[in-house]
Amino acid sequence: MTTEPARIRPPELGEPYLLTPGPLTTSYEVKRAMLRDWGSWDDEFRAMTRSMRSGLLDLIGPGADEYDCVPIQGSGSYCVEAMLGSFVPKDGKVLVLANGAYGLRAAQTMACLGREYHLLDKGDYLPPRGTEVTEILQADPAITHVLIIHCETSSGILNPVEELADAAHAAGRKVLIDSMSAFGAVPLEAQRIKYTAMVSSANKCIEGVPGFGFVIARKDELVAAKGNSHSLSLDVHAQWATMEKTGQWRFTPPTHVVAAFLTALAAHAAEGGVAGRGARYMKNRDVMVAGMRDLGFETLLADRWLSPIIVTFFCPADPAFDFSAFYDAMKARGFIIYPGKLTVVDSFRIGCIGQMDEHVMRQVVEAARDTLAEMGVGSAAPPAAALEERKKLAA
Amino acid sequence: MTTEPARIRPPELGEPYLLTPGPLTTSYEVKRAMLRDWGSWDDEFRAMTRSMRSGLLDLIGPGADEYDCVPIQGSGSYCVEAMLGSFVPKDGKVLVLANGAYGLRAAQTMACLGREYHLLDKGDYLPPRGTEVTEILQADPAITHVLIIHCETSSGILNPVEELADAAHAAGRKVLIDSMSAFGAVPLEAQRIKYTAMVSSANKCIEGVPGFGFVIARKDELVAAKGNSHSLSLDVHAQWATMEKTGQWRFTPPTHVVAAFLTALAAHAAEGGVAGRGARYMKNRDVMVAGMRDLGFETLLADRWLSPIIVTFFCPADPAFDFSAFYDAMKARGFIIYPGKLTVVDSFRIGCIGQMDEHVMRQVVEAARDTLAEMGVGSAAPPAAALEERKKLAA
Ligand SMILES: Cc1ncc(COP(=O)(O)O)c(C=O)c1O
Ligand SMILES: Cc1ncc(COP(=O)(O)O)c(C=O)c1O
Repeated sequence: MTTEPARIRPPELGEPYLLTPGPLTTSYEVKRAMLRDWGSWDDEFRAMTRSMRSGLLDLIGPGADEYDCVPIQGSGSYCVEAMLGSFVPKDGKVLVLANGAYGLRAAQTMACLGREYHLLDKGDYLPPRGTEVTEILQADPAITHVLIIHCETSSGILNPVEELADAAHAAGRKVLIDSMSAFGAVPLEAQRIKYTAMVSSANKCIEGVPGFGFVIARKDELVAAKGNSHSLSLDVHAQWATMEKTGQWRFTPPTHVVAAFLTALAAHAAEGGVAGRGARYMKNRDVMVAGMRDLGFETLLADRWLSPIIVTFFCPADPAFDFSAFYDAMKARGFIIYPGKLTVVDSFRIGCIGQMDEHVMRQVVEAARDTLAEMGVGSAAPPAAALEERKKLAA
Repeated sequence: MTTEPARIRPPELGEPYLLTPGPLTTSYEVKRAMLRDWGSWDDEFRAMTRSMRSGLLDLIGPGADEYDCVPIQGSGSYCVEAMLGSFVPKDGKVLVLANGAYGLRAAQTMACLGREYHLLDKGDYLPPRGTEVTEILQADPAITHVLIIHCETSSGILNPVEELADAAHAAGRKVLIDSMSAFGAVPLEAQRIKYTAMVSSANKCIEGVPGFGFVIARKDELVAAKGNSHSLSLDVHAQWATMEKTGQWRFTPPTHVVAAFLTALAAHAAEGGVAGRGARYMKNRDVMVAGMRDLGFETLLADRWLSPIIVTFFCPADPAFDFSAFYDAMKARGFIIYPGKLTVVDSFRIGCIGQMDEHVMRQVVEAARDTLAEMGVGSAAPPAAALEERKKLAA
């Protein structure tokens, strides 16, 4: 790691920066890796798959030899479904810890699969806590697994994954983690968290393009997962067993997306791995949040809960503010931001991940300043209701 | 259509041609469309999704207004599973017409879903016939749907889809089609075949790169599919309903692969649509098959069953022939061929699809000629057992 700012090239062709939680702005080199075709059966592509799997295992720290990495075609939600369907036996039961859209989607997945689950729904953003997990597990011995959302991207909160995993393990239950938006930038060490399985996807903190995700799971659990899956395509055991035997994906892989991902993984390593990537994103967040607060914007979350992935801001109370006009004006200035997902008050989100550094984040703040002026918004302060809402977490 | 040979640029960077049924050799323009990033929530990308869906519907001919197109993230097998899980009610029953690996995989999918099916297994390549369908449907009134594999890519046979669909409809049953490797080059007109739904994928005859597939289904069937799916991710109804409402994919789309596909669709139209694309592939096949026969190779299938997609050849009986050495030598000459999938005799396959024309196919034949000479194979004639095998179909 260096104190010098990372040198990031602006996107080509005048395209806007994607301040979104994936798809995100990737490097030109990553995209350029897609300029050729590969045969999926050929040795060269098999070697690429091998190298990708081992490169991802390198990110989970010591103890990685007890784990294996299984890429899965499709989007991140496919991987969550594959993990739930493959590692939770048909007679298992999952405690789903939800504080936002992705936790709720996991619960919906369990319902669709027709498997048992207990939903702890903390609303828009309040974090589930270890003591709650302990209580629920004590009351319900049928629960076999606890699903933790690492960074709940819908608010940007970094959930207390260690505390939650510790509570699950203390009660003798297994841990599954959706680390879609955090893996690669926030540490998730196998030896510390001892998860059964976790999932993430190509187009988040590793900065690849979308088209597949991956499961990292204990080898003994991969063996034991045989026959659990409700789906042929989303069967993690079957994908793993085929890859171990033939070096190939079971079905046609997104070859170009895999090639891009390998380039992205190499850049991730060159930046200093999880620590280096995380440091840049934290800097992005700190610079951007400080600048936005300077303009009068307020974050939903207190600093200790802010992830380096994406940050939720309240929409200003000023009636001159309109999100859709703000979005368009920011886009015209080269920045695509993201709508909010809170149900109670209006909000929007700005992502910190992708090929961007603090210089870009300063330009984002300047673009927001210009846009507020152009819209005639005097103050970016949120409505009183928003601040009331926020007190819930502080309390 | 023109009698002038299509002008196809050789692949860049000295990469080999992929004589495989997808991933295949795509044009440089198709790959170059992946050199930028898109926000999946943004208007621009929504417009791309819209244009792709309507471009695909244009390929099914008159009556397309009763159908809609629903892209699905993942590989082709995911789309087959999504189609079976979404259009066959939980208490439905499917007659699976299998004559190769993909038909058998569809049956395996039904087994995994825990839904009823009847498997007509014709072995490695013999085509299922209308009379057989009629008999089975008469004997089993519980059957609600018939699944037809359009081109069974594992042998390259073009199944008699009209004859089979007619038999199903005459018995009042619904038709589902896996047209993975044929759609876009072999006509599949909705008004003629009247299918409930069909699937194909981005990296076949439209000549895109892999990462998603699509379902084309009757609108009334899309409405009726609500609640059928065994999977959240592979729910065609839910994907369709979200797209209709928001213009977005339900979960993160493979944005770059979609961009490439749009470029591929435009090239498909410029080549004369299904007729133009099909004509080039037929020419590819005819030139290649004639040349290979000249060398003494024999095709598994008689001409009337040969698809313009991929052709199975018997391995020569000469003990000097070794497939793995043949593969490597062909690759060294710039051509990646494909292993066979017959269970009874040794075979290999050569694909006719992708960015290749008859000139390339002549080079393929020359490369095979050189390779045989280099290996010291005197005659490319197959063993007697292979010709015995082939008689089954002629009979
Ligand atoms: C925490 C989390 N889980 C699941 C998903 C779903 O991923 P996808 O949109 O690729 O299906 C996301 C997407 O951002 C996410 O952030
Ligand atoms: C007829 C047919 N069905 C299904 C598939 C499976 O597609 P995928 O490998 O993309 O899962 C293929 C692949 O070639 C195919 O040719």
